[in-house]
Amino acid sequence: MGLFIRELGEFGLIERLSAIVARTDPRVLVNIGDDAAVVRYDRPVVMTTDALVDGVHFRDDLIDPTSVGYKSLVASLSDIAAMGGKPLHAMVALAVPFTEQVERIEAIYRGLDEACAEFGVTIVGGDVVSTSGPLVITVSVTGELVGERPLLRSGAQVGDVIFVTGDVGGSAAYLHSKNQSDGLHIGESDEWILQKRHQRPVPQLMAGHICAQNPGCTSANDVSDGLSSELHEIALASGVRMMIDADRIPTLPALRHYARVVSVDPLQFALYGGEDYQIVGTMNRVKAGSFLSLMQAHGIRISLIGQVKSGEPNVYLNTRSGIEEVPKKGYDHFPVGVEPV
Amino acid sequence: MGLFIRELGEFGLIERLSAIVARTDPRVLVNIGDDAAVVRYDRPVVMTTDALVDGVHFRDDLIDPTSVGYKSLVASLSDIAAMGGKPLHAMVALAVPFTEQVERIEAIYRGLDEACAEFGVTIVGGDVVSTSGPLVITVSVTGELVGERPLLRSGAQVGDVIFVTGDVGGSAAYLHSKNQSDGLHIGESDEWILQKRHQRPVPQLMAGHICAQNPGCTSANDVSDGLSSELHEIALASGVRMMIDADRIPTLPALRHYARVVSVDPLQFALYGGEDYQIVGTMNRVKAGSFLSLMQAHGIRISLIGQVKSGEPNVYLNTRSGIEEVPKKGYDHFPVGVEPV
Repeated sequence: MGLFIRELGEFGLIERLSAIVARTDPRVLVNIGDDAAVVRYDRPVVMTTDALVDGVHFRDDLIDPTSVGYKSLVASLSDIAAMGGKPLHAMVALAVPFTEQVERIEAIYRGLDEACAEFGVTIVGGDVVSTSGPLVITVSVTGELVGERPLLRSGAQVGDVIFVTGDVGGSAAYLHSKNQSDGLHIGESDEWILQKRHQRPVPQLMAGHICAQNPGCTSANDVSDGLSSELHEIALASGVRMMIDADRIPTLPALRHYARVVSVDPLQFALYGGEDYQIVGTMNRVKAGSFLSLMQAHGIRISLIGQVKSGEPNVYLNTRSGIEEVPKKGYDHFPVGVEPV
Repeated sequence: MGLFIRELGEFGLIERLSAIVARTDPRVLVNIGDDAAVVRYDRPVVMTTDALVDGVHFRDDLIDPTSVGYKSLVASLSDIAAMGGKPLHAMVALAVPFTEQVERIEAIYRGLDEACAEFGVTIVGGDVVSTSGPLVITVSVTGELVGERPLLRSGAQVGDVIFVTGDVGGSAAYLHSKNQSDGLHIGESDEWILQKRHQRPVPQLMAGHICAQNPGCTSANDVSDGLSSELHEIALASGVRMMIDADRIPTLPALRHYARVVSVDPLQFALYGGEDYQIVGTMNRVKAGSFLSLMQAHGIRISLIGQVKSGEPNVYLNTRSGIEEVPKKGYDHFPVGVEPV
């Protein structure tokens, strides 16, 4: 039996958690422990906040607590990357059930700290409060722009090519496989590969950096709610039509293999899955060659998946059997018309 | 019957909430609507985050939803003020029960917007997710230092005087009165005065500003968990003993009157109540005169309540019947040894 938080008290818990994420950083003038943190930035400040709820964003049977912490930070780092920013500092607010065990919260913090160490971020503050409901983790991240300008969703130009980093759909395929009742549809090594996509996503910081410094990159968005949803956001913000090629959307062999076994179109995972934390964006065609070379020189896999066209903002998929509209669907926390369970 | 969030959907809700808090701000390079916000700061950045939980931090029978929003922002502004910072931008993350009505969330946002308008803050981002538990509001605020240095808890010097702005204990007395079963202990006008302390606290931004620019101000802390708790934090961080005079702790006549009627020592509210959002701090004795004058010239009520002494870090209260130790108690989200209800 573990230690309950009420055996430590609020201040005892904060002391333990602060020790886990303690980090020195010359930019931090005031670290954890006062009313607020003070940090030094030299360039425009990029900031984002994300809330994650136990049972909604993560489930004990699908992800371990350390990975929950890791992924909670990555979700925000991905937003900063897609703005062309370098994440530097984070604050973590926890609403914790009264009956929660200290070990689980500490494991989440170890995951947060792992991601901090890996991606150069310092946690400079936070808050711990009690709740009668499930655990809620809210991560706020601040950083600096790396280039002269932020990467917006609104700059896509007719004639640009559409690119996406890495591969998409892996996290969704993993969730799908875990919801199959017989559990026999996926081989062990494929499961491990897809599980890693779900549990330990990688924020595309270097890709965002390269995009921000290349004037030919006209828009960017991180893939958190699914490729379709993100492309629709760029289409709407830029007032353009996005035409993507089904054959060019990058998916893992493990995903395609799993999709074949369960007779699901792999594009269902790739387009509507979400939590891929890749960057999708648009690039001036003339400058695309050097952009691709630079990405590849940095070991970043990048795929050109389509073109920006004129017309009413929308997204279309070019398949072997013709062109079809891609519905704007992805994760919706309050899907219209669905009764709560 | 109101509108349920599931009748709007996540994106419909975000659109409505964004419209409520929309504000133009020349410092904001990228506002709500992209992956992250981008703002311009000229000086070191101050940042804080606070989570508030329905049923823990606010209760429908004690505070209206608009005031919940207002107060949620004030809690963070108060932290920034106590660092000697000027709050400028905020992000709001909501974990919302599936069955929540849109009207209540909109009222909370109107309250946030009221506080933004009053204190010069722009909400530049946020997140809305679903939860099976109670509403959780997490407000993160960033701003700039106004002076050359942050106000810390750790600078109190032996011989300094201890000051506090405004009055303390009003919010706690209001909560106490509402928990009396007969409800007859408080007059209507007194109730209104104490209610205002609970529902519409004022962050001490100008006081923080004056403290930050006066080199004689050696420490500061905002009174969120109760005067005793905050004094203990300064004592511990500075390695000093705090001696306060019972007769000098500023309380409202309405509080003292209510305390007499219910036969409670008014200092119980003043020392252990919390949510006063005043600033308590220490000041070099020689520079105290001009400091007081400047505060008063800005219409800020300020009281000198004691002195900093040498000795083991602790807090003592000087009463007519002698000197007693002030226990470090205040709100604890996970009080040690208390079983969850």
